[in-house]
Amino acid sequence: MLRIEKLVIVGVGLIGGSFALALKAAGAVGRVIGVGRGSKNIARALDLTVIDAAGGLDAATLTDAGLVLLAVPVGQMPSVMRALAPLLGGRTVVTDAGSTKQDVIEMARRELGGSLARFVPGHPIAGTEKSGAEAAFAGLYRGRKVVLTPLAENDPDAVALVRGAWERCGARVFEMKPEEHDAVLASVSHLPHALAFVLVDLIAQQVNAKQLFSYAAGGFRDFTRIASSSPEMWRDICLANRKALLTAIGRYRGGLDEIRAIIESGDAKALEALFSRARDARDRWLKDAQ
Amino acid sequence: MLRIEKLVIVGVGLIGGSFALALKAAGAVGRVIGVGRGSKNIARALDLTVIDAAGGLDAATLTDAGLVLLAVPVGQMPSVMRALAPLLGGRTVVTDAGSTKQDVIEMARRELGGSLARFVPGHPIAGTEKSGAEAAFAGLYRGRKVVLTPLAENDPDAVALVRGAWERCGARVFEMKPEEHDAVLASVSHLPHALAFVLVDLIAQQVNAKQLFSYAAGGFRDFTRIASSSPEMWRDICLANRKALLTAIGRYRGGLDEIRAIIESGDAKALEALFSRARDARDRWLKDAQ
Repeated sequence: MLRIEKLVIVGVGLIGGSFALALKAAGAVGRVIGVGRGSKNIARALDLTVIDAAGGLDAATLTDAGLVLLAVPVGQMPSVMRALAPLLGGRTVVTDAGSTKQDVIEMARRELGGSLARFVPGHPIAGTEKSGAEAAFAGLYRGRKVVLTPLAENDPDAVALVRGAWERCGARVFEMKPEEHDAVLASVSHLPHALAFVLVDLIAQQVNAKQLFSYAAGGFRDFTRIASSSPEMWRDICLANRKALLTAIGRYRGGLDEIRAIIESGDAKALEALFSRARDARDRWLKDAQ
Repeated sequence: MLRIEKLVIVGVGLIGGSFALALKAAGAVGRVIGVGRGSKNIARALDLTVIDAAGGLDAATLTDAGLVLLAVPVGQMPSVMRALAPLLGGRTVVTDAGSTKQDVIEMARRELGGSLARFVPGHPIAGTEKSGAEAAFAGLYRGRKVVLTPLAENDPDAVALVRGAWERCGARVFEMKPEEHDAVLASVSHLPHALAFVLVDLIAQQVNAKQLFSYAAGGFRDFTRIASSSPEMWRDICLANRKALLTAIGRYRGGLDEIRAIIESGDAKALEALFSRARDARDRWLKDAQ
């Protein structure tokens, strides 16, 4: 049975904190050390026993770590990796939870140098629009998917450790090519976020914004829920996955032009067909997901 | 205290059925007669005592009605009005629950002729993606907005009756010009529906649709919830409000081009500013709505 004596979480937010709590709940971890820049958040993580101690990007924290999870925003990843590189012991495995993979791998190749064999890129497909240690909970990954995009250089036992840790969190682990991962996530996650942010911003910019919002109802609330996500985090994700996201936006623009033409021409049949295809596909998805 | 001795609901679905249940719960109604084409749905409405009896578009049902609510899809409105016109007594007030108002008013001017003084156009801003009598519940309108767009020809007592009935349902009633109503709803309701349908349809059309859906998570589920709405109903709404919706789609296309340009140029500052504006506006809206 997999057990990690010393786990280091860099970035003790919803993602990192929930990983720690899940492994604790599974009895798969000895000691959890949290590293983070926000001293208030780290104090809260200690209070809530999400972590057992606070550490830093230093030898004392890292040398004898079994596993290090990098759960910082993608924008902070390079500097964290640079600090980490000279401190890693020969046995320590490192993984990340970044929402994009090609760019994280590029950073790792640049910054981690000799430790590449034991850096296994990953992405748990889970989250809420909340953030911080306070939002963390042990059940976040139960039944959810985690994608690993292992490197050609990876030690098989490093990949096995990361896979095993996520499985102990209750997640289902899949492997993909990094570019495949980024294209899939651009379509079903990054694009919807961009679309929701754009809609809310457009309404907010209108002269009668107050009136418009006052007539927004439940459908609008759910459609735009993801527009309450962290602006910094989504800025980083959208720029990190720029190429795949631009492709997805271009495709969406084509779809928008199509529905515009259908409505302009008053083609009831084509409009109903489009709506029916979408409704049926979504209902099938919901059924399959259960 | 307002009381309607005989209420006729044409179209006993979520909207019409909930109106009946709310007025019953408030003790504001004597007998409720339901009129509908789906015999199974009408039978279910009787079982659930959403209505007390089934009727038809005939003299027996309509002559002595105090209030008639037209809660049929906008596409069926003209034929229902045509059947209704010769049967209406001098005291009966008619209102509707259509999601668009300029087109319903145009229909009424064409079909209702002499009864225009007692036809008060309305739109309850409430609903779920569910439909049918089975989905109806008495609390649907509690605290929700209802927009009336009274006609210059309206008898003041007819407007007062319709307003009073919605208030007894627990709703807050507002008056607007029909073109104002249609523009507001195009922005905060019809456009988001179109956007959600388009996104799901685009994903469903891709060769790796199954894989894409399998990585869709909670954000996607909420964003696309409204794409599980009735294709027929939304076809009718989008075509009925074609002009305002095309304006809203055009504006959205501009917003999409803007974010595309920002991402293309890698302008992190502008991207974060856009996301922050949207997040703040949404959070303010949620706070104000409470």
